[in-house]
Amino acid sequence: MQFNKIYESVQQDLFKVEEQFQLLVDSKREVFPELHTMLSQVLVGGKVLRPTLTLLAGKFYEYDLKNLLPMATASELLHIATLVHDDAVDKASIRRGRPTINSIWGLEKAVILGDYLFARAGEFTANTNNLRVVRLFAQTLGTISRAELRQGFSAFKLEQTYEDYIERIAGKTASLFAMATESGAVLSRAPEEAIQGLKEYGYNLGIAFQVVDDILDFVSTEAEMGKPVGSDLIQGTVTLPSLLLLERHPGDNPVKRFFNKEGDKQENITQAIKMICDSGIIEECYQIASNYSNKACDNLSLLPDNPSRQALLTLAEYVVQRRK
Amino acid sequence: MQFNKIYESVQQDLFKVEEQFQLLVDSKREVFPELHTMLSQVLVGGKVLRPTLTLLAGKFYEYDLKNLLPMATASELLHIATLVHDDAVDKASIRRGRPTINSIWGLEKAVILGDYLFARAGEFTANTNNLRVVRLFAQTLGTISRAELRQGFSAFKLEQTYEDYIERIAGKTASLFAMATESGAVLSRAPEEAIQGLKEYGYNLGIAFQVVDDILDFVSTEAEMGKPVGSDLIQGTVTLPSLLLLERHPGDNPVKRFFNKEGDKQENITQAIKMICDSGIIEECYQIASNYSNKACDNLSLLPDNPSRQALLTLAEYVVQRRK
Repeated sequence: MQFNKIYESVQQDLFKVEEQFQLLVDSKREVFPELHTMLSQVLVGGKVLRPTLTLLAGKFYEYDLKNLLPMATASELLHIATLVHDDAVDKASIRRGRPTINSIWGLEKAVILGDYLFARAGEFTANTNNLRVVRLFAQTLGTISRAELRQGFSAFKLEQTYEDYIERIAGKTASLFAMATESGAVLSRAPEEAIQGLKEYGYNLGIAFQVVDDILDFVSTEAEMGKPVGSDLIQGTVTLPSLLLLERHPGDNPVKRFFNKEGDKQENITQAIKMICDSGIIEECYQIASNYSNKACDNLSLLPDNPSRQALLTLAEYVVQRRK
Repeated sequence: MQFNKIYESVQQDLFKVEEQFQLLVDSKREVFPELHTMLSQVLVGGKVLRPTLTLLAGKFYEYDLKNLLPMATASELLHIATLVHDDAVDKASIRRGRPTINSIWGLEKAVILGDYLFARAGEFTANTNNLRVVRLFAQTLGTISRAELRQGFSAFKLEQTYEDYIERIAGKTASLFAMATESGAVLSRAPEEAIQGLKEYGYNLGIAFQVVDDILDFVSTEAEMGKPVGSDLIQGTVTLPSLLLLERHPGDNPVKRFFNKEGDKQENITQAIKMICDSGIIEECYQIASNYSNKACDNLSLLPDNPSRQALLTLAEYVVQRRK
């Protein structure tokens, strides 16, 4: 099973989305060279997973590419804008193996560039001429920011539950996946039941995706991830692997010591990563991700069978098989 | 002439806008106490000038408060969101005489709170059910961010022209004033000519307002402004008064010395403030502001005479008479 196969049925449209990015980048070359450079640094070379979702979800019923393409573009722009702000807030220096905007241009420019990208995303959304997706777009940005704030306030706190974790990643990641699929469905005039199915597919896929991302943060290498191993933990963010570690070792454990500033910081982090990787925690996390992936597939049961449905099913499988 | 008089005809509606803010603040009290506190710190006690503009501009033709009120609310929320990010980017500690969000909660939380407010503003805009104002809203956020980026890139640079300055404040301030009036006009089904008149009124009023703001940054006291005197200059931002100083003293002058890091920083700033206040520069700036205020009044010439028009004319006069 290849990731390329998922893209296949929407590849031509994805090129058009990337063309929109290129147009945006090019439009600033003369009039604002610094903005041009910043845009080219963030808009080129992404995985375009969210536009893929919008396009696939939008191809079950009566769709008009004139409306679907701007929404696919907006899904990715919104995602990139939140990444730019996340990296600024986290003072991250590397993303996708490349230096972040804040590390090159400073935090101040990163904040305003993020705002600029929200605006462009909003404009593309308005270009769908559909008020329901405009509202959904604004609500999603609200949900993401609220979840980011929650994450900020719960950093370095030990008393977090599985439910807190799911709620947080639902807000941070799954809401945008759900927006991507729901908007595609709405724009293709899907029946309400199909819209709900595709929305829930996006939600469950997003949870599965984020759980795997949080696993990879521990088991992958810096070269594969393009950022340091254990970076969530270093930021004080409790994700599923560290949550399970805390549950399995309620007494003394390196995460607790790290959060409580007991002992050597680096030693605690290294030990936590080792304990997580050497235990059954990773498999348990993959199992949880698989459950969400299965739910996502179930959400498609009412939809007509077509290449989009096959691609979405394949995507749900792929997402929980990522090992790097 | 009293500022209260301007508010008079829309006072009841402004209460409803403030009610929306209070509802937003209250809705987080139980579920997210920290967000509740942050919201109450930014949403209570503003001048609500932008909602006033939306409401006044919206009362010339056929309006439905059900659409006008959410837009008035959105105008202020967008303004506040940009202030939260501005203060974070500038590391400002005081705004309106009160500590800023970044000074209380840290820069990271300020960035995400700003995003949250953009989202809420976007939702209120969507509640107008009018795609033209939705598009205008997104474009305005784009214009503001681009101007903020420009300001960042031109900090501590001496080779700036009057046109650069006007372009910058047009983007930073006048675009939001123009959005406030244009959206009100659009939502009240004004004829296109009237929409353009009200939009240009907002633009010219915004320029006049910002020029006076930039004057006050030099001539006011810290107690009156709620922030340090000369704070623009300290940030490296050339505004009209320092621009005129640079023009009048093309050889040696304290702004040049400060930007070039020659001599004592504080002494250069103090001297620059003194030179600006003791010269005819301030009067020249007020004259430029007055010209824009007069243009704003001219922009209303085609509109029917009613209490809104009187209030807008009074507002244009008021804006350039502010001396603190």
